[in-house]
Amino acid sequence: MSLDAKKIRQDFTILDQIVNDEPLVYLDNAATTQKPQVVLDALTAYYHEDNANVHRGVHTLAERATAKYEASREKARAFINAKSTKEVLFTRGTTTGLNWVAKFAEQILQEDDQVLISIMEHHSNIIPWQEACRKTGAQLVYVYLKDGQLDMADLQAKLTDKTKFVSLAQVSNVLGCINPVKEIAELAHEKGAYMVVDGAQSAPHMAIDVQDLDCDFFTLSGHKMLAPTGIGVLYGKEEVLNLMNPVEFGGEMIDFVYEQEATWKELPWKFEAGTPNIAGAIGLGAALDYLSQIGMDAIHTYEQELVAYVLPKLQAIEGLTVYGPQDPSQHAGVIAFNIDGLHPHDVATALDYEGVAVRAGHHCAQPLINHLGISSAARASFYIYNTKEDCDKLVEAIIKTKEFFNGTL
Amino acid sequence: MSLDAKKIRQDFTILDQIVNDEPLVYLDNAATTQKPQVVLDALTAYYHEDNANVHRGVHTLAERATAKYEASREKARAFINAKSTKEVLFTRGTTTGLNWVAKFAEQILQEDDQVLISIMEHHSNIIPWQEACRKTGAQLVYVYLKDGQLDMADLQAKLTDKTKFVSLAQVSNVLGCINPVKEIAELAHEKGAYMVVDGAQSAPHMAIDVQDLDCDFFTLSGHKMLAPTGIGVLYGKEEVLNLMNPVEFGGEMIDFVYEQEATWKELPWKFEAGTPNIAGAIGLGAALDYLSQIGMDAIHTYEQELVAYVLPKLQAIEGLTVYGPQDPSQHAGVIAFNIDGLHPHDVATALDYEGVAVRAGHHCAQPLINHLGISSAARASFYIYNTKEDCDKLVEAIIKTKEFFNGTL
Repeated sequence: MSLDAKKIRQDFTILDQIVNDEPLVYLDNAATTQKPQVVLDALTAYYHEDNANVHRGVHTLAERATAKYEASREKARAFINAKSTKEVLFTRGTTTGLNWVAKFAEQILQEDDQVLISIMEHHSNIIPWQEACRKTGAQLVYVYLKDGQLDMADLQAKLTDKTKFVSLAQVSNVLGCINPVKEIAELAHEKGAYMVVDGAQSAPHMAIDVQDLDCDFFTLSGHKMLAPTGIGVLYGKEEVLNLMNPVEFGGEMIDFVYEQEATWKELPWKFEAGTPNIAGAIGLGAALDYLSQIGMDAIHTYEQELVAYVLPKLQAIEGLTVYGPQDPSQHAGVIAFNIDGLHPHDVATALDYEGVAVRAGHHCAQPLINHLGISSAARASFYIYNTKEDCDKLVEAIIKTKEFFNGTL
Repeated sequence: MSLDAKKIRQDFTILDQIVNDEPLVYLDNAATTQKPQVVLDALTAYYHEDNANVHRGVHTLAERATAKYEASREKARAFINAKSTKEVLFTRGTTTGLNWVAKFAEQILQEDDQVLISIMEHHSNIIPWQEACRKTGAQLVYVYLKDGQLDMADLQAKLTDKTKFVSLAQVSNVLGCINPVKEIAELAHEKGAYMVVDGAQSAPHMAIDVQDLDCDFFTLSGHKMLAPTGIGVLYGKEEVLNLMNPVEFGGEMIDFVYEQEATWKELPWKFEAGTPNIAGAIGLGAALDYLSQIGMDAIHTYEQELVAYVLPKLQAIEGLTVYGPQDPSQHAGVIAFNIDGLHPHDVATALDYEGVAVRAGHHCAQPLINHLGISSAARASFYIYNTKEDCDKLVEAIIKTKEFFNGTL
């Protein structure tokens, strides 16, 4: 295989634990990933050696903290290949990033304008747009599915001169499909619309090049890619961020403050009001270093190998439905499924008895879940420390669960 | 003395370092505090044992993470004596909290309504109100100073039936004065106004009882009270939070999401969109435990003793001006000062050569700095691990700095 997951596992001691008398098999990576020791070491080193508030201080600790914080911004810039660190805003996570973009949309949208999203979006890429449309009188238009994936013909039909924003997940957190956001960005730009990419489920798993994608905004969550909780990145093209008003107001983001008005700092600080999550940003930098050392292409290849291994085994289980693309080569390492006659919460609970951690519910994608005609689903999601043995354990535990419930029915 | 700072220092190994060949004397606590080992241990334990996304999962790790996260909310509730955890919202920090309150003000304010703040406010308690007033046509009215403190007569004159919000720091981050926010809350309520308390500089240093203060909102920043960066609390009275629209939209905060509309969860989750800073909240819980174990009254008493010790020594230095109250009993452990003929940045840099970390600048309070007729100030700020020896070192270093610059002039 393309990377050594067993070696990688040694950096994640949390995985070496017994849950319900079984070794933990952690398959809830689309919700959040575990953290390698180097990330925890980066946090500890920061708090043991350098902790101080950033930007405002001239003393030694403040200078060291600022240097580390801004070095992480440069790491994030390089990771997504942004042109400049001016385009890299630290946020609390993807949700905050998408909310900020939707606030920008409120500056732009007028009555009868349209925002185009898809039915597979996460709530964080739906509700902020509902709000922006409600406030401006714009319309929120949905692209639907074909064969468990984005219906590109539907998208092309609905993308018109009225469309001012197109906002799509690059990878669906339920269907596991990979949307052609580069191609869609080109189509959006032909109509004069901004292209927003929700990268929460893609940035952890594949190489991202925002210049190549040519998107106007790109968001990611650190905690879904080995970094601490509470930190994320919003990328925006410099010329677009220059048009965008700040969303939070306070210290750090100002140039001059008078009693009745204020002026803003230059990019990126104009958007970073108050004390940022300094340690979180530094931890994110360490996580990005770790991922880059493995190589994002190697990670993508490895996860595709895992999917190619496990997806047919799941599809072969009688009464089990996998959502999204059925061809493993088109399916990212997020596999949502249901088993005839079993409630997904019962499935997740039963799997937990076997030490297998999966998620069950609507996965913050109720419109999609409704569209699929179900009320919830179970979901297994993979990352760099998962192995074929984990896949086998999942399949075995599902079969055992089925047998157990069939016996009790 | 009322607490054993030397024993406490053992929990903060960062303080045992040499800066510019001198032992570090960290006096930048109003910007951010250091973290005791128990807080770092809480972070490490969480990431080593329990890390998972909260609320959404039925598997063992998700249940443990959720239990720890919500236990921290209860710790925060108890720390400020809120009636219910429904009233305790986790935020990124005070800046986010105040921005959310000002967003609520946009729901309430109408043309010619007034918002009353003071000239000593931090930018985070000014600019959000400028924005709310700009959007609604309300007026932002300032209370000024008398004898380096809040001018209560001015406040009473400006507090009228037009006033809809009064928003004040409980402790000024420059003047170090302690504002009688309980008394002011009563006055505000008599006029039908909401009372907002910026507790960023008070909550770390004295016992807080939001029911006794009877404020409608209270904000604090974890990183200024031993907790990790990126976490804070916004307290709001339940009946007020029920009137308040959510500010961020996404996963976790919803009840039902349809294609064109959504409904919200009950308090407090209605305000917590997306994956929160889980580890940050757990670290905050550990910090609050640590502070409570020492006792907030003991902390307040100790810091007052430090101020009583150091303030007269500073006042005795020729050419040194201390801002704010001159009576130590009215001055919290934040001491801003200037030295005739010396730029505060040069003072801070020179003190750093002596290992003494102080801040210099406008302290995110430009209107106050302008009002004081200066362009910036140096600031020393104290916390539980600072000692009389630290005070002596500060005074010695200032005298040495004065002599050095006088020699070169």
